[in-house]
Amino acid sequence: MNMATTDQELYPRKILDYMEGFLVSKTLFSACELGVFELLNESAMSASQLSECLSTSEDGTERLLSACVGLELLNAHTHPDGPVLYSNTEMSRVFLTKASPKSLYHSIEYSSRTIYLCWHYLTDAVRDGKNQYEKAFGTNSKDLFEALYRSEEEMVKFMQLMNSIWNICGRDVITAFDLSPFRRICDLGGCSGALAKQCVSVYPESTVTIFDLPKVVRTSQQHFMPDQDQRISFCEGDFFKDALPPADLYILARILHDWTDQRSVELLIKIHQSCRAGGGVLLVEALLHEDNSGPLTAQLYSLNMLVQTEGRERKGSDYTRLLTDAGFSRVQIHNTGKIYDAVLACK
Amino acid sequence: MNMATTDQELYPRKILDYMEGFLVSKTLFSACELGVFELLNESAMSASQLSECLSTSEDGTERLLSACVGLELLNAHTHPDGPVLYSNTEMSRVFLTKASPKSLYHSIEYSSRTIYLCWHYLTDAVRDGKNQYEKAFGTNSKDLFEALYRSEEEMVKFMQLMNSIWNICGRDVITAFDLSPFRRICDLGGCSGALAKQCVSVYPESTVTIFDLPKVVRTSQQHFMPDQDQRISFCEGDFFKDALPPADLYILARILHDWTDQRSVELLIKIHQSCRAGGGVLLVEALLHEDNSGPLTAQLYSLNMLVQTEGRERKGSDYTRLLTDAGFSRVQIHNTGKIYDAVLACK
Repeated sequence: MNMATTDQELYPRKILDYMEGFLVSKTLFSACELGVFELLNESAMSASQLSECLSTSEDGTERLLSACVGLELLNAHTHPDGPVLYSNTEMSRVFLTKASPKSLYHSIEYSSRTIYLCWHYLTDAVRDGKNQYEKAFGTNSKDLFEALYRSEEEMVKFMQLMNSIWNICGRDVITAFDLSPFRRICDLGGCSGALAKQCVSVYPESTVTIFDLPKVVRTSQQHFMPDQDQRISFCEGDFFKDALPPADLYILARILHDWTDQRSVELLIKIHQSCRAGGGVLLVEALLHEDNSGPLTAQLYSLNMLVQTEGRERKGSDYTRLLTDAGFSRVQIHNTGKIYDAVLACK
Repeated sequence: MNMATTDQELYPRKILDYMEGFLVSKTLFSACELGVFELLNESAMSASQLSECLSTSEDGTERLLSACVGLELLNAHTHPDGPVLYSNTEMSRVFLTKASPKSLYHSIEYSSRTIYLCWHYLTDAVRDGKNQYEKAFGTNSKDLFEALYRSEEEMVKFMQLMNSIWNICGRDVITAFDLSPFRRICDLGGCSGALAKQCVSVYPESTVTIFDLPKVVRTSQQHFMPDQDQRISFCEGDFFKDALPPADLYILARILHDWTDQRSVELLIKIHQSCRAGGGVLLVEALLHEDNSGPLTAQLYSLNMLVQTEGRERKGSDYTRLLTDAGFSRVQIHNTGKIYDAVLACK
């Protein structure tokens, strides 16, 4: 078989799929943003009915619904003497409606409005080796979280993003190790408190202090913790500058991936100093395989950290090194098989 | 099993994949744009060597290469006493290097720079039921191709896009039917001439006239047809306004999907008038299934037509209706199993 024949027969299905990736993302995102899944949770509807309720064009709505059927996010019911009726799949009902306890709605909203635009500058990020907030949003703050929290609205959206992902991954990372020996837990950068809630639910004897920036704490109390659990409290501060509350276990969930190795060790040393003997630290991150071969999600997230932060995703051995450099020992690594994994170390 | 248990066990792998779609697209796009596959076509290289050649950050380059390995676009060779070396896969060599006869490079470039930004406004397109060129690029032309060809550079990029897709789909659509009875072929909106070249290669007895706007013809002669085939000629004009050259077969490849039903029939009537008796018209489009259930690519492309044009993708029966409304008969539909299908009708 000569080369020409090989080329002829090779069809780049995979590359064409990759080229369509952003079309798929945006189809999902738009259907969420327009409220398609909310509305179809009430009853099955035709494209015409939906477009009337959503004040959208009937033609555009019909195309969007049809693509959602292709993505298996909606079911289409054809009737011989009526229009096609669309209804939610089980998957959409559970993960794409706002009110569902496992909703990914806010992750999707943040991906669509913020991350999608940041990634338009991926080529520049790879060239410069740094995040592209300035190009994407015109913010030139040197402080990462001043950029991320550049407005009250952006901060709430970011907090909702954080909240949303723990709806589906929180329980796995909190149960990766038996944390029952640790009664006083401090969740550093605990944000909206989603992981704190998982903690007190799984370990009813524990109490959790959510440590975060003053404006985050205020927003969290206002928007995310209306009827506060007695076992969850807040502490305002900047973990790089201020004293940390005493605790048996410190949680750093998706914190170190925002920062360089140097700043990570700086923070871990501070935690080591505040931690009681026998206490520990739990890292929650998307771990790369030791040979860097995957998982694809962690590889993509590491590029996302390049585009958006000062950090990166790391291997288990990288976190072990950071932890031992800061004085921690007995590092245990637990891969959950989902996006986020857990690393536990002791003082 | 109660509901809570079902929700607990349901993991939204598919939705998370869809959410990552744009990360995957942009990883591929950036690797192409930076010239990664060009460079690795010469020899395997480390991230450090590549970043030096490309003037990119070593850290960013290493993350990009690692994600390309995850996407199976690159191979990683680990050596016990040296850095990881990256090399092209067969797929990348054939489809992602610029000089390859099957290169998708220019489709990728256009997707990354133009279509990606247009799709940021998909929600608005569904709401308004019309294209979002004005929001995306500030062009408020009422004429679709004045917007698409808003600068010489944009026009060349668009023409390269058109050219590129026929590298992988051209032969299938040209051989879908035996076109040998048609000696004088006219490719309306034939652009860079990629399909014309396929025609004269498959049907050596045929001659092809490429009919397109004057500036497109000039650019095509300059950039795409340096050593012109005697069997291929050009004719300048606007197919909605000017007389069409006489021919036995008219090709409309990815033309009708840009336009409304009304304008499509208008154009087809004009073709019918110019066509000799016994002649025909060949439509090349991504066909939707008759029940609208797929293929996903055509459903997504129909949304793309909403975002970018005045048209849509259609079913075989839709094209049959447009063709018969214009006076054509004996409509035959051929699904190629790849992106683009073929429809032949006779006068």
